[in-house]
Amino acid sequence: MKTAARKKTGMAPGSAVYTGTKNTEPVRMHAITFNKDAVTEYECQSVEQLPLCKDQSNVAWIDVCGLHSVSLIEQIGAKYGIHPLTIEDILHVGQRPKIEEFDDYVYVVLWMMYAGADDIVQEQVSFIVTDTCVITLQEQPGDVFDPVRERIRSRKYRINSSQSDYLAYALIDMAVDSYYTVMENVDEIVTDLEERVLVDTSTRVLHDLYQMKRRILQIRRALWPLREVASKLERTETKLVKKATRIYFRDIYDHTIQVIDTVEHYRDLLSGLLDTYLSSASNKMNEVMKVLTIIATLFIPLTFIAGIYGMNFQHMPELSWKYGYLAVWGVMALSAGLMIHYFKRRKWL
Amino acid sequence: MKTAARKKTGMAPGSAVYTGTKNTEPVRMHAITFNKDAVTEYECQSVEQLPLCKDQSNVAWIDVCGLHSVSLIEQIGAKYGIHPLTIEDILHVGQRPKIEEFDDYVYVVLWMMYAGADDIVQEQVSFIVTDTCVITLQEQPGDVFDPVRERIRSRKYRINSSQSDYLAYALIDMAVDSYYTVMENVDEIVTDLEERVLVDTSTRVLHDLYQMKRRILQIRRALWPLREVASKLERTETKLVKKATRIYFRDIYDHTIQVIDTVEHYRDLLSGLLDTYLSSASNKMNEVMKVLTIIATLFIPLTFIAGIYGMNFQHMPELSWKYGYLAVWGVMALSAGLMIHYFKRRKWL
Amino acid sequence: MKTAARKKTGMAPGSAVYTGTKNTEPVRMHAITFNKDAVTEYECQSVEQLPLCKDQSNVAWIDVCGLHSVSLIEQIGAKYGIHPLTIEDILHVGQRPKIEEFDDYVYVVLWMMYAGADDIVQEQVSFIVTDTCVITLQEQPGDVFDPVRERIRSRKYRINSSQSDYLAYALIDMAVDSYYTVMENVDEIVTDLEERVLVDTSTRVLHDLYQMKRRILQIRRALWPLREVASKLERTETKLVKKATRIYFRDIYDHTIQVIDTVEHYRDLLSGLLDTYLSSASNKMNEVMKVLTIIATLFIPLTFIAGIYGMNFQHMPELSWKYGYLAVWGVMALSAGLMIHYFKRRKWL
Amino acid sequence: MKTAARKKTGMAPGSAVYTGTKNTEPVRMHAITFNKDAVTEYECQSVEQLPLCKDQSNVAWIDVCGLHSVSLIEQIGAKYGIHPLTIEDILHVGQRPKIEEFDDYVYVVLWMMYAGADDIVQEQVSFIVTDTCVITLQEQPGDVFDPVRERIRSRKYRINSSQSDYLAYALIDMAVDSYYTVMENVDEIVTDLEERVLVDTSTRVLHDLYQMKRRILQIRRALWPLREVASKLERTETKLVKKATRIYFRDIYDHTIQVIDTVEHYRDLLSGLLDTYLSSASNKMNEVMKVLTIIATLFIPLTFIAGIYGMNFQHMPELSWKYGYLAVWGVMALSAGLMIHYFKRRKWL
Amino acid sequence: MKTAARKKTGMAPGSAVYTGTKNTEPVRMHAITFNKDAVTEYECQSVEQLPLCKDQSNVAWIDVCGLHSVSLIEQIGAKYGIHPLTIEDILHVGQRPKIEEFDDYVYVVLWMMYAGADDIVQEQVSFIVTDTCVITLQEQPGDVFDPVRERIRSRKYRINSSQSDYLAYALIDMAVDSYYTVMENVDEIVTDLEERVLVDTSTRVLHDLYQMKRRILQIRRALWPLREVASKLERTETKLVKKATRIYFRDIYDHTIQVIDTVEHYRDLLSGLLDTYLSSASNKMNEVMKVLTIIATLFIPLTFIAGIYGMNFQHMPELSWKYGYLAVWGVMALSAGLMIHYFKRRKWL
Repeated sequence: MKTAARKKTGMAPGSAVYTGTKNTEPVRMHAITFNKDAVTEYECQSVEQLPLCKDQSNVAWIDVCGLHSVSLIEQIGAKYGIHPLTIEDILHVGQRPKIEEFDDYVYVVLWMMYAGADDIVQEQVSFIVTDTCVITLQEQPGDVFDPVRERIRSRKYRINSSQSDYLAYALIDMAVDSYYTVMENVDEIVTDLEERVLVDTSTRVLHDLYQMKRRILQIRRALWPLREVASKLERTETKLVKKATRIYFRDIYDHTIQVIDTVEHYRDLLSGLLDTYLSSASNKMNEVMKVLTIIATLFIPLTFIAGIYGMNFQHMPELSWKYGYLAVWGVMALSAGLMIHYFKRRKWL
Repeated sequence: MKTAARKKTGMAPGSAVYTGTKNTEPVRMHAITFNKDAVTEYECQSVEQLPLCKDQSNVAWIDVCGLHSVSLIEQIGAKYGIHPLTIEDILHVGQRPKIEEFDDYVYVVLWMMYAGADDIVQEQVSFIVTDTCVITLQEQPGDVFDPVRERIRSRKYRINSSQSDYLAYALIDMAVDSYYTVMENVDEIVTDLEERVLVDTSTRVLHDLYQMKRRILQIRRALWPLREVASKLERTETKLVKKATRIYFRDIYDHTIQVIDTVEHYRDLLSGLLDTYLSSASNKMNEVMKVLTIIATLFIPLTFIAGIYGMNFQHMPELSWKYGYLAVWGVMALSAGLMIHYFKRRKWL
Repeated sequence: MKTAARKKTGMAPGSAVYTGTKNTEPVRMHAITFNKDAVTEYECQSVEQLPLCKDQSNVAWIDVCGLHSVSLIEQIGAKYGIHPLTIEDILHVGQRPKIEEFDDYVYVVLWMMYAGADDIVQEQVSFIVTDTCVITLQEQPGDVFDPVRERIRSRKYRINSSQSDYLAYALIDMAVDSYYTVMENVDEIVTDLEERVLVDTSTRVLHDLYQMKRRILQIRRALWPLREVASKLERTETKLVKKATRIYFRDIYDHTIQVIDTVEHYRDLLSGLLDTYLSSASNKMNEVMKVLTIIATLFIPLTFIAGIYGMNFQHMPELSWKYGYLAVWGVMALSAGLMIHYFKRRKWL
Repeated sequence: MKTAARKKTGMAPGSAVYTGTKNTEPVRMHAITFNKDAVTEYECQSVEQLPLCKDQSNVAWIDVCGLHSVSLIEQIGAKYGIHPLTIEDILHVGQRPKIEEFDDYVYVVLWMMYAGADDIVQEQVSFIVTDTCVITLQEQPGDVFDPVRERIRSRKYRINSSQSDYLAYALIDMAVDSYYTVMENVDEIVTDLEERVLVDTSTRVLHDLYQMKRRILQIRRALWPLREVASKLERTETKLVKKATRIYFRDIYDHTIQVIDTVEHYRDLLSGLLDTYLSSASNKMNEVMKVLTIIATLFIPLTFIAGIYGMNFQHMPELSWKYGYLAVWGVMALSAGLMIHYFKRRKWL
Repeated sequence: MKTAARKKTGMAPGSAVYTGTKNTEPVRMHAITFNKDAVTEYECQSVEQLPLCKDQSNVAWIDVCGLHSVSLIEQIGAKYGIHPLTIEDILHVGQRPKIEEFDDYVYVVLWMMYAGADDIVQEQVSFIVTDTCVITLQEQPGDVFDPVRERIRSRKYRINSSQSDYLAYALIDMAVDSYYTVMENVDEIVTDLEERVLVDTSTRVLHDLYQMKRRILQIRRALWPLREVASKLERTETKLVKKATRIYFRDIYDHTIQVIDTVEHYRDLLSGLLDTYLSSASNKMNEVMKVLTIIATLFIPLTFIAGIYGMNFQHMPELSWKYGYLAVWGVMALSAGLMIHYFKRRKWL
């Protein structure tokens, strides 16, 4: 996920400029039109082949994968009457999730998350919801909408007898649900960190804690504005959303709140983990210092005593005492004993 | 308590999928119907045996323990006209507390807490409140509702002459009260930690502090949305809640606020405890370092002097002085004295 | 002050259960009835002796000290028409400050603070304000209301010609004022800590900082809800509060805000003090380490040199040099000089 | 500035008690009455000499310096019809800034700041604004109002042709402006601290950081409520504030917001500085430890080797080897070399 | 960017005083008048040459670079009917971004950011928007408006056929877009710091972290009030903003929110980085201490043993033992072995 949206500074407003990763693969356009009785599905090679969506008895779902061909997106915009500012937003990858109501359509942009080849992919999806169709625009092929496709094809679910607002709900619901999967992954990593934090004080843990914090901050950033989007979807006054569908949008709102709640929970846990890691590392240090101090304070005086009787003065009466050597051992044992007693009283041993 | 609600991603909305721990025990269904004069109580073996709840002169309380049999819950839903989204929420263990008003019933979901076999159990309870009955759905047998059962059976209390809204109140009140018990447990542990934190610097304390923080975060997470639930219950405009019962729901709101207040208080105390622990550990370290430094700086110069006169040079005039040995002792005593004086001035001794 | 309110879990709502410290002393009931012209004051032995408060020309203040006799409180409740939920709250020591309006009376519960035998006492007071009387209920004898008693007896003040709402104001004002006294005590301790924190790094300071934090958190907890109470008192629409008294309740609100402000200020100061303490302790450690390092790095090489010429090899040419001993002293002085130069450059000396 | 307002606990409400520092200097009362054409200015020896302020064609500004004479303030209050609660607030030094509207006047109390003899003085000022005069009451002579006096005397500015609301604005504006001066002083100290924090780790910096934090907290405390005061002044519905003056009060609001913004900015910077100081101190410690460790680990093994050949065993073959002494030097050089290599690899050297 | 706005304390309100850096360069005044068909552009030498802006068929953009000539700005103010308080704000560099609506114009002040000679320049720009012209006033030549100039000159864009509100939008949009560029710079530095923080513990990193924090705080300070400005621009009821332009102001609001979001994100990351840096530095210290402790505790006992047999007592039987020397080596090897075993068990090696 890009953290700072690169803006095409200095362009006229409504300028269509793609800000994502350049890509040479052809743009895939997939159309499904369906009603209670039939499902038609086909790949479109050009904008002309896209359904016209004038027929109230069908619902059309047009899925565009690939935003790098600016002219193509502009053609689609022209075909369905989409405002230039919306086109700008679609192409401007790195958008903050938002909802905008226009006269003929509602524009929703948010992030979906799914397990990619080797990491979690966070990808921007735009939804254009008119009264007869839903257009979804994403950067790459691969998304979280397959279950919806299956449901439409099976013709067994409510979706086939509903209208574009319900289709929009089903798709947005999938995108919100995708965060649950990511949160499970977060849960696993946090549980793992909870165990390591008290035993392992290497920089590796530190690195993992920071990466986790980073990820949670990014998820948060994608989620917080989503709450507002969901809330607006539920309370919107546009005629596009039917009363019966409204209860489903409330459900999306509930799910968003629930994921946000979970994210905040992990954020608090993580900050607790960092504190624990720091204290634990400092505790380990304490242990090391204690060992050094005990050994050093035990032997330094003894070595001093040994040094005394290693001196070569001609007149050192103790050296010729018969039991001098034994006496020195005695003094040393006494000194060590006193030290150990002191350490015990201090609870260092 | 599960921290991250596992969501059945990719299912059609309203799909009934149980997300809790699998379980093979039979689902227990217990029904009590009562009014001022009589109390009937029985275990139901099948959904057919459940009371119809069409009779305005009785209040029925149906308690379902076990959510793992999805088809059974769906049958119950069908019998009492419960919306598929509600069924989905009931089965979806890990819900955020919430209240939802439907045409014929009010749906409330929250967490109760009680002392289980060896730890505190946090269990999701769903309440379906219609005008003649209350259906409670929980994961396992064992709950906090026994006092209500006793009160109904004794026929001495207001509850028997009240309606379903008062029964709902009595049950929700029990769930909220269950947090008080947990907070007393928290109080004990925090008081214990307060004593240990200044004397014990082992990693054990650290571990306990983190566990405490974790628990408090979890209770918080169950409580904050409850406030909203309680507030909505008090202000709800549904005809299901009678005016006389409203004052009782205000009482629930007050209790929720009070527990939240207590939780926040302990959270602040805990963060103070962690700071104190860290400082205390660092103080201990300081003490250890001081001892090391005093011993080392006292003896290192003395050992050096002894080393000097342990050298074997042929021309070392001091060695043959008559009082050389004594003089060395004098120099050593002086050096040690100066050191001790310095330490005393620095307030290290 | 009890931090966690012990709740009588599992009781029917409105059950009168005393949750404070058990007590065998008799409950004291003191009644004062007064108007512009006369003040009557007497101790009541039983509930029957309490004034009826039906007379609009008098104001009665009934002060009950001791809540442990549940039946007595229930008799009082019955005599003055108090709702069972209010009785429950009165007896339930550990309440969050709140105000509740009933048809015939306003119920206010808050905490007063005063210097007790050896520590500050925080005691719950309940106020029942009807149109002819104020009933105050507290746990123990000893309170902050004596100045009000004096004022009534002296018959010189506005209070004697006012009604129950002004009496209620005067009493609540005393309770709020009691926090000022406590804040002065806090001020003294914080000023004392400010001085100690930079010079004394013992665990005693740490303990005192934590105790201070604890106390401030407790005062905060009693104060924050009080703000709401005061604000409701000012804006209440009940006919019990006359327009002329309203300006006085605004004054209470102002005072509450002011004390909260002060509490928050001390909280911020205290957190600054903890940071300073930690830094100061770490600075002291730094000093200790420097001394150790200087002494050790100065003498360790010297001791090594002495050790070299203490070896007993038969072929050590230096030993027989005429100025060998002097040369060694020279080398040592040089080494020490270089070290000291290095320390000076590093600004350690 | 007093941090905790000492309250005259136990007094009847509206009791006039001065809570500031006792003072024996006479109270100075200065009156200026002016209109477009004339300015009259004189010192008043008694309350009788104060202008009556009944004349709509003049504006009067009465400035009272000294609050210690309670009876005098009460006389002034009586003369201009000021409510006893306002008198109480005027005398009660340590007020939180606030605005109160009465029937005949608006009462504003806030803090002004100015450079005194050796430190910044924070002094409470009360403003009584009626439709013909403004009364300012302050504790000591010396204030920030001189520029307003000059403007009135010069008769060149808008103020002479305006009414009491504009005069009040001009005075309050001066008080708010006085915070800018203090913020410049804060800016200087923070800039100075920014430089010292990375090089100087003495307790002096720590002390200065804490004092800075303390001062910023105090300014904040005086400023936050001021925002509310300014906002109320702008939106007030009292007839005392004319429509044309309202735009000026909006300006005061803007200035207050701007100073608050600056204060919050410095607060954030200061917390960043404390973190930097702590890290820097800990870095310095790290350096010291490294030097100790390098010296100690380098020489301790060498000293041990020297010690070995200082033993007096009769059978120590190495001692009689011809090149024994040289070999020992070789071993020592090797050992030191390995150590230095190890330190270099670890990047300690 | 100046952090504390220097205020001209003590001046009459509406006094025009320039608070920025003094400057002797002449003030540049550039005027562009344009409509769909023509673009006229010229430098003005005096205020008289500035366009009158009475012609509804043209839009004029007057750009003033240099605020140090107070009289010139006052002349401009007089020519276009600008309120003295606005003039004061224009000259008072260090303003908090704000919007103020007057009868004839809207005044907007904010900060633009652009890469200057060697650092990022943050410069205050004031916008006066009337119904026929936009006046921009900035401190120095050099700004972010060149793309707008190009667009106007090219006559290909919407701007030439729009009115002053759209011109204002285009200019403000540029200023807001300028933050994106700065955020990219922040992104680079933070990414760089993320890498350094775990490997480099020098004070340089610390310094860079603090400078980064400082910069982010300054951007934040310029951005937060901008949100309010953008929101007011969108919702303003002034007739100056046409309905069609409103949607563009919503776009500005969205961009502001997005940049704020990014700034807050980096702020959180930075605080995480500081924690990581501190932990990493403390980890490094731990490593150093371990090495010291291992070496010292390994050799100190050995040196003691060597010291014992370096004593010169006449009666030391071990010295004459045949295998005494070997035995001592054995004891030493054993002691070292035990130590190493202990270190291994503790996982220090």
